[in-house]
Formats: sequence, structure tokens, C-alpha cells
Amino acid sequence: MFKHIVLPVALLGAFASARADEGQWQPHQLPQLKSELKRIGITIPIDKLTDLSKHPMSAMVSTPGCSASFVSPDGLIVTNHHCGYAAIQRNSTPEHNYIVNGYLAKDRAAELPGGPSMLVYVTEKVEDVTERVLKGLAPTMSGRERYEEVQARVKALIAECETDKAYRCSVPAFHRGLEYYRIRQLMIRDVRLVYAPSDKIGNYGGDVDNYEFPRHTGDFSFLRAYVGKDGRPADASPDNVPYKSKDFLVVSAEGLKAGDPILLAGYPGRTSRYKLPAEIRFARDADFPLRVAGMQADLAVIAAATMGNPAYDVRYASVVKGINNVMKKTQGLLDGFARKDIAAIKDVQDAEFRAWFRQHQGGASKTMLADLDGAIGADMALSEEEYAYSVATHSDLLASARTLYRLALEHQKPDPKRDAGYQERDLSFIKARLTRLEQSLAASVDEARYAAALQRYGKLAARMHPAALDALLPAPHALPALYKASELADTAKRLAWIGKDAEAFRKSDDAFIKLAVKLNDVATGLENRRKEINGNFEKIIPQYMSAVIAWKKSQGKPVYPDANSTLRVTYGTVASYPARDGITKGPFTTVDGVVEKHTGKEPFVAPKELLEAIKEQRFGVFKDPLLGTVPVNFLSSADTTGGNSGSAVMNKRGELVGLNFDSTYESITKDWYFDSAITRAIHVDIRYMLWVMKEVDHADNLLKEMTIKYPRK
Amino acid sequence: MFKHIVLPVALLGAFASARADEGQWQPHQLPQLKSELKRIGITIPIDKLTDLSKHPMSAMVSTPGCSASFVSPDGLIVTNHHCGYAAIQRNSTPEHNYIVNGYLAKDRAAELPGGPSMLVYVTEKVEDVTERVLKGLAPTMSGRERYEEVQARVKALIAECETDKAYRCSVPAFHRGLEYYRIRQLMIRDVRLVYAPSDKIGNYGGDVDNYEFPRHTGDFSFLRAYVGKDGRPADASPDNVPYKSKDFLVVSAEGLKAGDPILLAGYPGRTSRYKLPAEIRFARDADFPLRVAGMQADLAVIAAATMGNPAYDVRYASVVKGINNVMKKTQGLLDGFARKDIAAIKDVQDAEFRAWFRQHQGGASKTMLADLDGAIGADMALSEEEYAYSVATHSDLLASARTLYRLALEHQKPDPKRDAGYQERDLSFIKARLTRLEQSLAASVDEARYAAALQRYGKLAARMHPAALDALLPAPHALPALYKASELADTAKRLAWIGKDAEAFRKSDDAFIKLAVKLNDVATGLENRRKEINGNFEKIIPQYMSAVIAWKKSQGKPVYPDANSTLRVTYGTVASYPARDGITKGPFTTVDGVVEKHTGKEPFVAPKELLEAIKEQRFGVFKDPLLGTVPVNFLSSADTTGGNSGSAVMNKRGELVGLNFDSTYESITKDWYFDSAITRAIHVDIRYMLWVMKEVDHADNLLKEMTIKYPRK
Repeated sequence: MFKHIVLPVALLGAFASARADEGQWQPHQLPQLKSELKRIGITIPIDKLTDLSKHPMSAMVSTPGCSASFVSPDGLIVTNHHCGYAAIQRNSTPEHNYIVNGYLAKDRAAELPGGPSMLVYVTEKVEDVTERVLKGLAPTMSGRERYEEVQARVKALIAECETDKAYRCSVPAFHRGLEYYRIRQLMIRDVRLVYAPSDKIGNYGGDVDNYEFPRHTGDFSFLRAYVGKDGRPADASPDNVPYKSKDFLVVSAEGLKAGDPILLAGYPGRTSRYKLPAEIRFARDADFPLRVAGMQADLAVIAAATMGNPAYDVRYASVVKGINNVMKKTQGLLDGFARKDIAAIKDVQDAEFRAWFRQHQGGASKTMLADLDGAIGADMALSEEEYAYSVATHSDLLASARTLYRLALEHQKPDPKRDAGYQERDLSFIKARLTRLEQSLAASVDEARYAAALQRYGKLAARMHPAALDALLPAPHALPALYKASELADTAKRLAWIGKDAEAFRKSDDAFIKLAVKLNDVATGLENRRKEINGNFEKIIPQYMSAVIAWKKSQGKPVYPDANSTLRVTYGTVASYPARDGITKGPFTTVDGVVEKHTGKEPFVAPKELLEAIKEQRFGVFKDPLLGTVPVNFLSSADTTGGNSGSAVMNKRGELVGLNFDSTYESITKDWYFDSAITRAIHVDIRYMLWVMKEVDHADNLLKEMTIKYPRK
Repeated sequence: MFKHIVLPVALLGAFASARADEGQWQPHQLPQLKSELKRIGITIPIDKLTDLSKHPMSAMVSTPGCSASFVSPDGLIVTNHHCGYAAIQRNSTPEHNYIVNGYLAKDRAAELPGGPSMLVYVTEKVEDVTERVLKGLAPTMSGRERYEEVQARVKALIAECETDKAYRCSVPAFHRGLEYYRIRQLMIRDVRLVYAPSDKIGNYGGDVDNYEFPRHTGDFSFLRAYVGKDGRPADASPDNVPYKSKDFLVVSAEGLKAGDPILLAGYPGRTSRYKLPAEIRFARDADFPLRVAGMQADLAVIAAATMGNPAYDVRYASVVKGINNVMKKTQGLLDGFARKDIAAIKDVQDAEFRAWFRQHQGGASKTMLADLDGAIGADMALSEEEYAYSVATHSDLLASARTLYRLALEHQKPDPKRDAGYQERDLSFIKARLTRLEQSLAASVDEARYAAALQRYGKLAARMHPAALDALLPAPHALPALYKASELADTAKRLAWIGKDAEAFRKSDDAFIKLAVKLNDVATGLENRRKEINGNFEKIIPQYMSAVIAWKKSQGKPVYPDANSTLRVTYGTVASYPARDGITKGPFTTVDGVVEKHTGKEPFVAPKELLEAIKEQRFGVFKDPLLGTVPVNFLSSADTTGGNSGSAVMNKRGELVGLNFDSTYESITKDWYFDSAITRAIHVDIRYMLWVMKEVDHADNLLKEMTIKYPRK
């Protein structure tokens, strides 16, 4: 989420680290937090948590966009229902609707293929390669030169690591370039659906309850990693065998209570904790309100264009869901900014830091702070143009044409010189994306959305319009002809462009290909300015962050880097929160709430078997002694964000007690500012999962496969 | 409220008394609760609470429909803002809008007349007169004969007590006739407005927040009782002097915290705790849904008929508010019945009691239970006809005509024989009511409401239509002519009918007088059946309640009578409650919530001075040490109902710490069934009142007049 708005990352000291529970820590940082972890009651030796090859960290995996963990030695993986959704959807037919009915493989032979986009990554190695990335970079380089040199070195480090095709490597920057780590992940490509409850459990509450609490969602599903007979990742095949996971989590049904400590490990995507006050004001006063209005308008257009056509409705359902999700998150940030003047808080922190910095300038450039402010100003201006450009090109067909032409252009260079995302290693992902588009595209809807977007573009402030762009854009009334003159809506014809050379594009009569070619100079111009600005950030921000880290160190406080989709550990306690004056929410919800919410109307339709089990109080060992019934979801103060979906929530001994799946609405601001008083992550209580498996879905085979600690009677 | 539906009261054992905090106790019952009161932490000697002539009970007073208490030796009274509202409204003009701006009399001369309906009652004496009411009643009497004989004795007891015109007496039945007490109240008729905050404080949240929590209402106002120079009640006059109250409450600003005990004294109006399961099912499945639908339809008609006419809008504002209030309460009862199967709970209790009763029948009639069930059946059938009759006569003009004609008919009898409500002692009240009607009547709106009501009447089940009524009713299309042919909408002409004899009515050409005369036989028929049923109830229920009390006594549990607008004491603790699964509300709200709710749009417009004082944190001694700010409202588990508005909430030492003013929505069911887990009364924290007086309204004169205990620093 927020792909465009996180590009202009700038940093502001880890002021937040002063507060308990904040922090998405790199595992190797955890020894700095030893006393804090001990204080809240964590008993697992902290040093064990730093070693990715040891329990429990070696049980943590990721899937695209989500986190997960092994729960048996035979590659059994537990994650969220919404993380396994693509695999469930892919195998569903009108006759066998696994979305509505759920699916349980009673034996291994019944486990269903997850499809090409269902991958499992196991992080095996993390190396500090900062020196190899930064050594000898001339300080005289322009931003863009520096950016491109760093990219070249990063690509070389990746290529060196990916000689074995079983692995996928990456070299993400931490603190925007202060440090670089090379991460080597085993990439398992045969992943099967083992078990998912009905979406009446797994997605109970649906979009209505998204980001809300009290929550009553059984957001869990089970996958299994398969490999070739040689034990190495292989393309999907019936001959493959379950992956022998070296490690797995023990599941504890002993439960937690308010105040108990938890650890949470996973792959948080992106945060913006170190934004400067000016950037917060820009987001709050200009950027976000514009985006929310744009998304609202887009949703209205989709609703009108799909009305009365159930097939289109289905095709755009996930698009709408996605836009709604981002819109709710953006609005949540705006609401958070309105509730608390975060810019003013950051003003104070920024002033404190700048005062300290003037006294302890050390090795940093004398002009560092001025350079930073300048870079941020340039970044905000460019961001406005980038946003306007995205509005001016808001068509899936045009986006496909741009990707295809860009691929052809990059293909003219030798592979290591191509821009990241357009190398040989990316080709299968691009192809998958261009294929998948058919599931969510109708040319007439795309045309309506694009026409409306062009209207919106026309109304944007003149300063936002990229130079030379306006003259190249089609007039809204010309769109019907444009769409008639393109074949890109046809999947086979769209895919046929992969591998064609740039000249073929320039000669094409396809209207969208022609438009993409025409827009290329403007797009390249924006990209080059982005490279220049990013290169400058990568020069300035590491200096700035070094100073911030030194400042915090002088106060005895460690600093964690913004999330960047790498493995992190966070911790906290099971805790309620004050949602409004006079209202406390959480920490637990129970099956009583499932009944309370059940209206019989989507998204509040609980399965009959579930309601009966509740009514008959068949709770067994899963009944919480304090609540007197089965808990469903619970809140903790851990620090999470998108990408943490499916993350293992562990008790003080490192046993699995829950799955992270969402945050409360009031917490949305945490991506920019962690307010420990109100920020809460929402987890599935593992007792609910186990109880549903036992009493509703009779998944006895899986309950037997896992190692489960039951409470003493 | 619920005037019609409480007539058919029948009783079911005080099963609820087993739970803590339930019970609206007669002061003389309190010694039975000594250990319970001690357990929760009450330190004031319990025996003191039983004596109405001693502190603190002698500081408790009532106003029409509300409770209040003296807070100075000079007759200063504190009650709710909504209880003092009539006095505020009466003195407001467009130039001096005390509703919007509040009013503070800086000295006694500036205190404003409260008007003829603003009365203060001080209960001085309560005598058990059961024997005088019941002695020697022949068991062979019919229900109606018995009813009329009891009424005659009650009227005689009242007349004997009211020889001194400074007093108003009543002889209410307890447990529907098991006991009768004669209550003698000093009636003070010169009551002045001393101080009220702006309704932006006193009614903050308005109808939107009615019955809701979290609540942020400063629902308080101050009145002063005035008497003649001889110290005795007198008609309003500038020569009157402040009443020298023998007792008053000390105000404590020391505050409460969750779990602290409270005592609450006041005049609860009416409860139905002893209903039998059949009556609950009748209310739930038939009666209440019909009433809610009728009120919704009536509101829609008023909205349509007043649309575009601001003057009518104003006139019907309080009518609409009243209907909305009853409708929300009735719907709240239905929601409560839906949430919890109270009928089923009562089934179990009823069966337990009947089993016990068969073993311990004692002196009770062998046919008692069958007689009770029979009376309840007859009562429900008559209730349906009474409701249909009220729909068929749903016009303010017709109601006036009926009152006037009834008055003339009763006037033919000697005063002691007249029906209660139509005696000489009632005349001033009738006149006040018929006068006040001009503030809330527009003939065209009344016509629209009556036309719609006649339509609704037509659709009611045939069994509900009283015999002979249909033929007497006007056809809806005849209403325009009917309204044209009546002068009752003119206040002077309406009042001129008071004192005319019945013959004058029978000769009148006024269309509504004629209709009232025509309907008289049907009305009298229904009333006589009501007397018969009530007389039967008064014969049976005391036997039934005696058995229930004996049964509860065998379990060591005291029994309290249903509320009947007499002085009661209840107790409880400051406590939050689980509003929904995963949501806890209360116990406190704070000034932070006032800011949180302030939208600048009615009813959420907080005064600028208030917002500033909050922003500047000028909290002084009123800051709660745990909350870190000023509390506004709080919840307790005390047992209250309508009529308890303005009741003194006292701490363990009997000092004033709050004013009762509402209940939560989930609590509404308590009038029928007290569920201690969720029932909470809403109180103004006295610290908010004192803080507003000091920081916002600068009512230093009153702060000085009261005896206030401030917290130690």
C-alpha cells in the first residue's frame, strides 16, 4: 500500500523508541532490548532470537505480501485466510465453492495446487554488504550518478547470490542507505492448499469490519511447501514431496490473558516513521486529501460502469476491495492527524534534535540539515507531478502498454545494466501480472475510469502538470476511438508483445502502444528526476540518521530502521485500549460476539455448525478460564504494519499463540507515528483456530500433525 | 412514561433481589440490607437513613417528575438541567436567551420566577395506613365494588391529611395493595431559577445522546424554594423569603473512583419488575411493536404537517422530543428482550415459585394462582381495547373536550365521591394543563395526526375495537369540517368550559364537545371494566406478593416494591459495563470527550469558554488524580428509573458527589428485569458541575453558599 507516497522517504530521529512496544527490530538488534524483553516477561533466551538458523526464527517464512510460519516438520505452514485466499479462489468452482464452504484435505493427495503466484520464501542468510555497496563512491557524484552506481552494485550483489536458482536474493537499504544487507531466501514454488475454513469464518465481518475492533474473524489457513525429490525447490509437479522444514513452531493452547507478553515475527512492508514535520503537513493538508477524493471518484465510476453487469461486478470486486482498503487507510491517517497534531509533536522533536546536532556535529557535513530540507522540498514538488502523472495515465491498458514498451527498451541493454524490475529474473513475475490482469479488466470499465481520471487530471493545479504532458494526452471524447483501436484487452495479444523489440512498438498501430511510446519521454524525465532526488537522499539521509542514532545513543535508546519487507521482530503485551473517551476496547473478543454480530446478512453470516457449537457450549479445553468461553481475537501493543499479515504471535516461551491479521482504525497513524497509548494490532487467538478445526471443520489430521500443548485440566 | 401500559401491573416474585445493587428500597427497609451496605463500603449509619426527618434523607425533595436535594440552609436546590428546563424556558426571550446562554443570578433579587408548574415537595411524614384502607372489606365484593370502596377510603385519608393547605398528601399502594402508606409533603409553590449553564453544557449531546454512553452532559441547574414571611408555603410573590431548609447535603469534590460505593435517593416513577412471563410475551410480541410503529407513524405525520412552518416546528418540538423519548425507551425494551430471553428466565423463576407455593400454601386462597392468571388474561385483553381507544381518540382537542366533559360529570357528585384526578384539589392542575396546551398545539397539525390515527385504528385487529366505538368515530374525510366546527383550539374558549354543567356540554354545537359527549358511554364502559380488573388485582396480588415475600424470606432475601413515585433509596458501586463483546464502557467520561465530540453542529456545540478552559487545562482541584483531567459523567450499578432524574448521588459518608440523570440504552430493560451485569445509571460528576461553575460560569456566589469539601492537596 501507499507505493507512491513512500518513495519520498525522509527521516526523523527514532524519537519513538523511547516508548515501550514500539519498534520493528532487525533480529540482530534484539540483544540491545534484553532488559526490556525480560521486564515484560519474555523467557526465551534473547540471543536465540538473533540467529535466523535457529529456533524459533528458522520457522518464520513469507509468502508474497504476507508472513507465515512452519508448524510441522513436513512443511505445513499456517498463515491468514486472506493470505491463502488466491489459492482458495483458484481451486473454487461453482460446484466446489471452497470460498464459501472451506476446504480440508483429508490426506496429502487431496492437497490442491496453489498456482504460480503462491510462493514461500525461507530467509536463510542475512549479510551486511554496506561496504561493498558504498565503498569509494565519489562525493562529487550527482544524485542520479550516485543512484545508478549504487543500483549497479546492488544488482551485481544479487546476481552473485542467485547463481543457485533455488534462491531469490535482495539487497534492501536500511535507514535509506546507511546500511545494506543481502538477504538470501529459499524460494519454494510448489505450494498447496491444505485447509481453509469457510470465508464465513475466515472473513467474517468482511470489508465492514476491516481495520475495526471488536473483531471476530477466523483469519487463518494452512498451506504446505513442496519440493522436488532431491529436496530442492522445483516447479509444481505431482511428483514433488513435502518440504522437510528444519524447524517449526510448537502451538500452545494454554492461552494468554491481559498483560501477558508476546513476541511477533514477520515481514512488515513499509513505514514512514522518520518523516519530517514538513512532509507530514504536505501529506495531511495536500497529498492525502487529494488521493482520498480521487479514490472516492474512481469507486463511483467503477460502481456506475459495472452496474447491472454481474460479470463485471465480479471482475472488479477485488479492485474495489483494494481501493477501499487503501482509501480507509489513507482516511485513517488523516483522521489520526486530525485527532493528534503529530506535525506539532515532530516539530518539538525536530527542534530538540537540531539543537543537539549543532553542538555535536562531528563528522557530518556542515550543510547536512540544509541539504536535507532542500531534498525534501524537491521531493514534495516532484511527488505532486508523479501523482498527477499517475492520474493522467490511470488505465490498466495503458499501464500494460507502458510496462511492455519499457521492457523492450530495457532489453536493449545487457541484463546487469537494466533497471531493477526489468531484468531476466523479473520476467516471470511481469508475465504473471500481465496474465492475471484478465481477471480484473473490462475494457468498457477501464475506459470509463480513464475518462474520469483525465477529467480529474485537468482540474489539478497547474504546478502539478508535468511539462509537455498535457499536449500528449487524449481528449476524454477521443477515448471510445482509442479503446476501439487497441487489442491489449485480449490477453494473448497482450502477452505476445513480450520479447518484441522497441522498434516494433514504435511501428505499431495499436492505440495504447502508440500512446505509451508517445509518453515515454515524459515518463523517463520524471524517473530521472526521481533518481536524482533518491540519489541525493541516499547521500544525505545516512549522515542524518547517523547523527540521530548518535543522539539517541547519548540517551541510551536504540533505533530501529523503517520497515522494508525484511524479517523483523516486535514485542508487546496483550492490552486493551481507550478507543474514545469512556470506551475501552479489548483485549479479547469471544464467540459470544460472533453470535451477537450474526445478522444472517453478508458479511455477518456465521456457519450453522459454528453457531450450534457455540449454542451447545462445546468448548472443551479451548474455554478460557477468565472469559468463560472461547476467545476469538485479541489485541496486543506490538508494532506491526501491512506485510505482517499471518505473522506468528508467540508467548514468552516462543510458542505459537496467535496469528496477526490487522490493526485497529485508531492505529492506522502508526505507519507515521507510533502512539503507544492507542496503537493495537489484532490477532486471531490460536484457541479459536484450534477450536474451529476440532468442533466445526473436524481437521483432526492437522491437529495430530502439529505439536500442540494443551492446558492442564 | 408508559402510562397506559403500566396500568395492567401484575407481579412476579422479587427474584431479582438475589443480585447486588438491584432494589429501589423504601427507607424503612434499609436495616434489612445493613450487611450488604457495609460490605460495599457505606459508612453512614444505616439507621439514620430510615428517618425522613434526619440528615441526609430530610435534604431530599422532589419536583414534578424529578428528584432534587437541598444544598444550603437557605432553600437552595440542585437538580438536573432538564428538570429545571421549564423555568429556564419560561424566562427566556429572544433578547435574553437563557436556554442558549445559561443564567446566573448574581444575588437573590435576580432569581427568576419558575412559574406555576414549578413546585417543590418535601416529604415530611410517611405512615402505614394499610389497616384503615383494607379493614373489613367483604371478600364477596366484585372487583369494581372493592376498587371503589378502596378509592373512597384513600380519598378520605387524603382529605383528612390536607386540612392544612400547605401540604399535599397521597396514599399510594405498595405491591399493588399489600400495603398502603400515607405520605405528607410540604408543597412549596414559589420556586425560582437561580442558575443554569448553557444548554450547550446542560443538554450537550441532546437527543442524539439520550440513553447513550459515553455521555458528556452537564445536566444540572439550581433552584431556590421561597415561602411566605411566616415560613409557610405561599403563592409566588416578591415578598416571599427563601425557605429555611432544615437540612442540606454537604458537597464533596473529593471524587470517586471505579469500585467506590454510592447511595442514591429519589423518587423513581414506575417499574414492572413483577410481571409474569405471559405479560412479557404480550409486551414483546404484540403490544410494544404496535406502539413503536404507531409512534413512528405519528412522528412522520408531525414532520410532514409542520414542514416549512418554523412556528409549528417550535410548538411541536417538545411533543416530538417526548414521543422520541418514549419510542427509544420502548424500542430499548424490545431490543433488550431480543438480546436476552427474559420471558424464559421468568418461566424458570415462576415455576420455582409455584412449586414452592404448592408446598407452603399457608393462608392463601387455594385458587390464588388460577385467579391471578385469569385476571392477567382479562387485563391483557382490555389493554388491547384501551390502546385501540387511545388511537381512535388521538387528538389534543378531543382529549381536552373529554377532560372538560368528564370534569362536568364528576362535578355533579359531592367532592369526596368524585373520581381521583377530578376533585377540587385537582382543579388548578387541570387548568394549568389546559392552558399549557397552547404552547404545543396547532389545529392543522392536530388534524393531520388525528386523520392518520383514525387510519391506523381502522387497521387494528377486530378484537381490539371496543364495542360500539366504530360507529361513533368521524370518517377521516369528515375531519376538516369537524375542526372548522370547534373553537377548542382557542385557549380562552377552551378554559371557559371549566365550571360549566354537563347539560351545557350536551347542548353544545362545538364539534369536539359533541364528539366527547357521544364517546362518553364507550369511555365509561372501558373505565368500569378497568376498575373491575384493578379491584380484582388488588384482591389477588397482595396474596400473591405475601407468598412471594414468604418464599424469598425462606431464602433470606428481602423484597422491594415496584416504584410508585415515592421516596426510595438504592445503592451500588461506580462500575463500567460490557456493552458489546470486546467493548467496555465507562465508568468515567472526561472533558477530553467533550472536545472529542464537539463538531460545532447541534447538539455537539460546546461553549467557547468551556473549550478554552479545557485547552488551557485550568482544572485546579477538580482534576482527578487517576484520570489526569476533569471527569464529566460516570456510571454506577444503582437501580434507577424515570423520576430519578436529579437524584442525589452520595458517597459512603452521605455527601453529594453526583446527580443522576439517565441510564444507558442497554439498561432500559431494567424497568422489567434488572440485569446487574449490564444495568448502569448515568450520573453527572459533581466535580464537573463545580468546575463549570468556577471556570466557565463564575458562579462564585453559589460555590460560597454551599458547603463544599475540597480534596486535600
